[in-house]
Amino acid sequence: MAEKEDTYEKVTELARRRGFIWPSSEIYGSVAGFTDYGPLGAMMKRRIENIWRRFYVVQEGYYEIECPTIGIEPIFVASGHVGGFSDKMFQCPYCQEFLRADHVAEAFGIPHAGTISKGDLHAALISKECPVCGNVLGPVEVFDFNLMFTTSIGPGGQRKGYLRPETAQGMFVDFPRLLRFYRDHLPFGVVQIGKSYRNEISPRQGMIRLREFTQAEAEIFVHPEAKDHPFFARYANYSMPLCGISQQEVDAPAVVKMMRQAVDEGIIANEYVAYYVAMTHDILCTIGLNPEKIRFRQHMPDERAHYAADCWDAEAFSDRFGWVEIVGIADRTDYDLAAHSRVSGKKMTVFVQYPEAKKVHRKVISPDYGKMGPMFRGKTKAIAELMATTEPLADGLHLTTDGDEIIVPSEMYTMIDEIVDVFGEDVMPHVIEPSYGVDRMSYMVLEHAYAEDEVDGEMRVIMRFKPCVAPVQAAVLPLMARDGLDEIAHELVAELQNEGIQTEYDDAGAIGRRYRRQDEIGTPVCITIDYDTKEDVAATLRDRDSMQQVRLPLADIPRAVSLLMKGKKTFGQLA
Amino acid sequence: MAEKEDTYEKVTELARRRGFIWPSSEIYGSVAGFTDYGPLGAMMKRRIENIWRRFYVVQEGYYEIECPTIGIEPIFVASGHVGGFSDKMFQCPYCQEFLRADHVAEAFGIPHAGTISKGDLHAALISKECPVCGNVLGPVEVFDFNLMFTTSIGPGGQRKGYLRPETAQGMFVDFPRLLRFYRDHLPFGVVQIGKSYRNEISPRQGMIRLREFTQAEAEIFVHPEAKDHPFFARYANYSMPLCGISQQEVDAPAVVKMMRQAVDEGIIANEYVAYYVAMTHDILCTIGLNPEKIRFRQHMPDERAHYAADCWDAEAFSDRFGWVEIVGIADRTDYDLAAHSRVSGKKMTVFVQYPEAKKVHRKVISPDYGKMGPMFRGKTKAIAELMATTEPLADGLHLTTDGDEIIVPSEMYTMIDEIVDVFGEDVMPHVIEPSYGVDRMSYMVLEHAYAEDEVDGEMRVIMRFKPCVAPVQAAVLPLMARDGLDEIAHELVAELQNEGIQTEYDDAGAIGRRYRRQDEIGTPVCITIDYDTKEDVAATLRDRDSMQQVRLPLADIPRAVSLLMKGKKTFGQLA
Repeated sequence: MAEKEDTYEKVTELARRRGFIWPSSEIYGSVAGFTDYGPLGAMMKRRIENIWRRFYVVQEGYYEIECPTIGIEPIFVASGHVGGFSDKMFQCPYCQEFLRADHVAEAFGIPHAGTISKGDLHAALISKECPVCGNVLGPVEVFDFNLMFTTSIGPGGQRKGYLRPETAQGMFVDFPRLLRFYRDHLPFGVVQIGKSYRNEISPRQGMIRLREFTQAEAEIFVHPEAKDHPFFARYANYSMPLCGISQQEVDAPAVVKMMRQAVDEGIIANEYVAYYVAMTHDILCTIGLNPEKIRFRQHMPDERAHYAADCWDAEAFSDRFGWVEIVGIADRTDYDLAAHSRVSGKKMTVFVQYPEAKKVHRKVISPDYGKMGPMFRGKTKAIAELMATTEPLADGLHLTTDGDEIIVPSEMYTMIDEIVDVFGEDVMPHVIEPSYGVDRMSYMVLEHAYAEDEVDGEMRVIMRFKPCVAPVQAAVLPLMARDGLDEIAHELVAELQNEGIQTEYDDAGAIGRRYRRQDEIGTPVCITIDYDTKEDVAATLRDRDSMQQVRLPLADIPRAVSLLMKGKKTFGQLA
Repeated sequence: MAEKEDTYEKVTELARRRGFIWPSSEIYGSVAGFTDYGPLGAMMKRRIENIWRRFYVVQEGYYEIECPTIGIEPIFVASGHVGGFSDKMFQCPYCQEFLRADHVAEAFGIPHAGTISKGDLHAALISKECPVCGNVLGPVEVFDFNLMFTTSIGPGGQRKGYLRPETAQGMFVDFPRLLRFYRDHLPFGVVQIGKSYRNEISPRQGMIRLREFTQAEAEIFVHPEAKDHPFFARYANYSMPLCGISQQEVDAPAVVKMMRQAVDEGIIANEYVAYYVAMTHDILCTIGLNPEKIRFRQHMPDERAHYAADCWDAEAFSDRFGWVEIVGIADRTDYDLAAHSRVSGKKMTVFVQYPEAKKVHRKVISPDYGKMGPMFRGKTKAIAELMATTEPLADGLHLTTDGDEIIVPSEMYTMIDEIVDVFGEDVMPHVIEPSYGVDRMSYMVLEHAYAEDEVDGEMRVIMRFKPCVAPVQAAVLPLMARDGLDEIAHELVAELQNEGIQTEYDDAGAIGRRYRRQDEIGTPVCITIDYDTKEDVAATLRDRDSMQQVRLPLADIPRAVSLLMKGKKTFGQLA
């Protein structure tokens, strides 16, 4: 892989050096598909997660739950992961490397490599060279490799465990408890942020394809016939570009639509999906992705899961990887609840009351005990109970009790026509699922924030983080580490921390070098304490992006920085 | 287990019903050792974690990092977990149940069951009955069962992976990167909150013994000869009861000491350990554990790891489980870094500069190339290099090059006496490790908060959470869901949420029942909107614990509740 030094290289180098992202277990030689968040990276990731919570937990009112990462087999039998969560792979007979059959075939230009059969992949690979050792592969066996990590619970190895491939299943499995928590009413939502695992065959894309990763998922349970979001007004006029199915079919550019329009014109299936498409756009812009490098692409009918009613991906553009899927928003219908209900035998429905009771005609079988008694004796009661759920045939009711086939002749019962009140019905909710890849979001924030400019003829590297995701929000720099400047600086640090502002103190080296360091870690504001501070009780604030400076009284600084961090003032408005 | 209905039963029942703690994957029959946090439990747990961060990350300034939960083998070879992280177990030959040999022996009153050998356990169990099926066990094989969950990374099963048994190892392994991040200076600290795993043999203690659990750990790297905490003053006069080794030896009660005293009198090994003992006490009280049900117990010399210089457990008292260890605070010396350095071959030291350079006498070997050349030819240079690190014997220098033993006679070199400046030395830091079990803390918060009292002749259940951990902080209850009361209530909810207060809206059922529900989930304040609200633009606040009421103008309520939540005012001070 001899690519030019692109933004990926630069961001990765900076991220390692400054403590954002480190290779995992580096001293032992790291393993592909795992990554460490260093001090600044973990802080940034946590800020992104908390912004996500502000939208889903605070604004939407969906509670967060926390399920284990290890799950037992029936969960993933029901979800389909045991049967179908696999990639097609082969092993090179020469270098023994395991490779993804579809990826290798695709690199050789085989059309539809991602969807053709194992047999076709086998045929396609025979004459091709191994991308690792260069030998012609010949006839290799292409087989399915299940991507779930497996383990064994307890001693004796009897109980198989899987590391969950998504956080979603825990929320489906908890549906009966959740329904009671939400007092048996639809709609309701629940979210989870946590680790998920996919045992990728040979991941080679850094933070874009991890074997252990963090997801933020929401599952919103709605009435199948009520997919209007109760607060749709919030995003009805939100306008954004959409690559719908019909645009993709003719290679047309995205169309800019308001959400109200998108739903009315049938581009997006329903208000719920449209609402979360818009909210996702809002979230991605809030955490600092470049709006010009975000697009929303609808799954084509052959790309989308067979059960899904609609599905949209939010993609962000990476210099290295092209368009990368970072969020998926799907209407999964009742697929998941139906599957878990089938496998567990448990009820996964909500009793939904009708606005008013419905009168329903019913035919009811009324046994004639006087006639039945002499014939069926002690079994009469049991047989009478079975009769209630049996359809009458011409010669009577056919039923089976204790293994015996019995016919109850029609003179032993009468059919009664009843009108009953029905107050509601059992409904299996549909699920709207916005699912976010937090590591991909974190990486894209780094890549989109990376910038270079020239200052006094020297190259300057800046991470242009939005203040809300910047790991360090302010730095206090005493010109010298003596003459009381350090003490004033320490006091200011404490006051800024008290305002909830993550603040660094740095007194080492020339002031210019200290600014560069803060620019590289994306600190929005530097505050310099100089000798004048002792006279005027003021200090100089420097804006990371514009390098504009403004002098403010010490006492006003914590509040001013706090307003900047919350986005309530711009630097220009501080003077 | 036919215990009386103790607090554990009551808390567990309430926790399930109200959405704090649920059995995992309940619809499929749950598995011991796994638990789900429901909506309220997850909120409470997150609050506990964030309070912990306020102490360790904000106050102490220790950055958080995030390492994967799956680790490769050399990490756990070095840490000792591959070799020694196991429990002694046996399988009952009759019911096939796997059981912990030490636990069963202990239940039969075998002395020191936890520390005796496998042979002694074997002998002790022969005549005992299986606690599950009741058959006499006879000669059972007692063997070691490693408690790490294993998995396999990538296809082909070549690469073994372990689910980490503690978060600590990630921080040790990252030491070289962390040291650079902290600019090569001691002391520095780093923390991690995340999942850890122990494949317990047969866990039967609910949230006290989980197979998947959350840890919050800090690793503080200090100079071995500088174990004075720079901010010791913060806790020097903090006074608390301590069960030191000498108290335990004579079964004496705990002694109340200030931390300064405890260190000076040698009860606690050093300021660092004392500082985190006190801070832990502070944290446990802050999250709402009952100070009378907390104790700090020093490990006895035979109980503590052989390398540890000192170790203290914070224990909380549970009605069901007795004293439960919830935090461990240890001085682990250089055990971990030395082990990782040995296994990885990497440097795990800090170069520490002396206050001023030291003059050091050194003997240096100066080769006589004129004499050596004719004898050693092309090898002269390589041999001269080896000579520098060889100790001279009587007949010269003995060394090995390319497998040959060579003696360089003493006439071929001279010994020179040098005085050199040495500016510092490589030091392997010691590690102070406070390690918290977040699930145990969460459970103990529930148990200590549980209370019952009588109101108007009816039993009332209250969770007396501190406001800072209460999942729901305020509830707004319109007397009726009509006549505009609901609208006023919704507006107030929005304003409270804006202040960062987690607020519930509830208009269903009689007001008394709604109060009971909020009492059961521990909501500190209920605010009732009644018909007078429309006249006086005020509402009634009700205190959960005292049931005291106070009427405040609507506009003042968000700030008043905010002050209550932050502990800056008591309810009595609101009027």
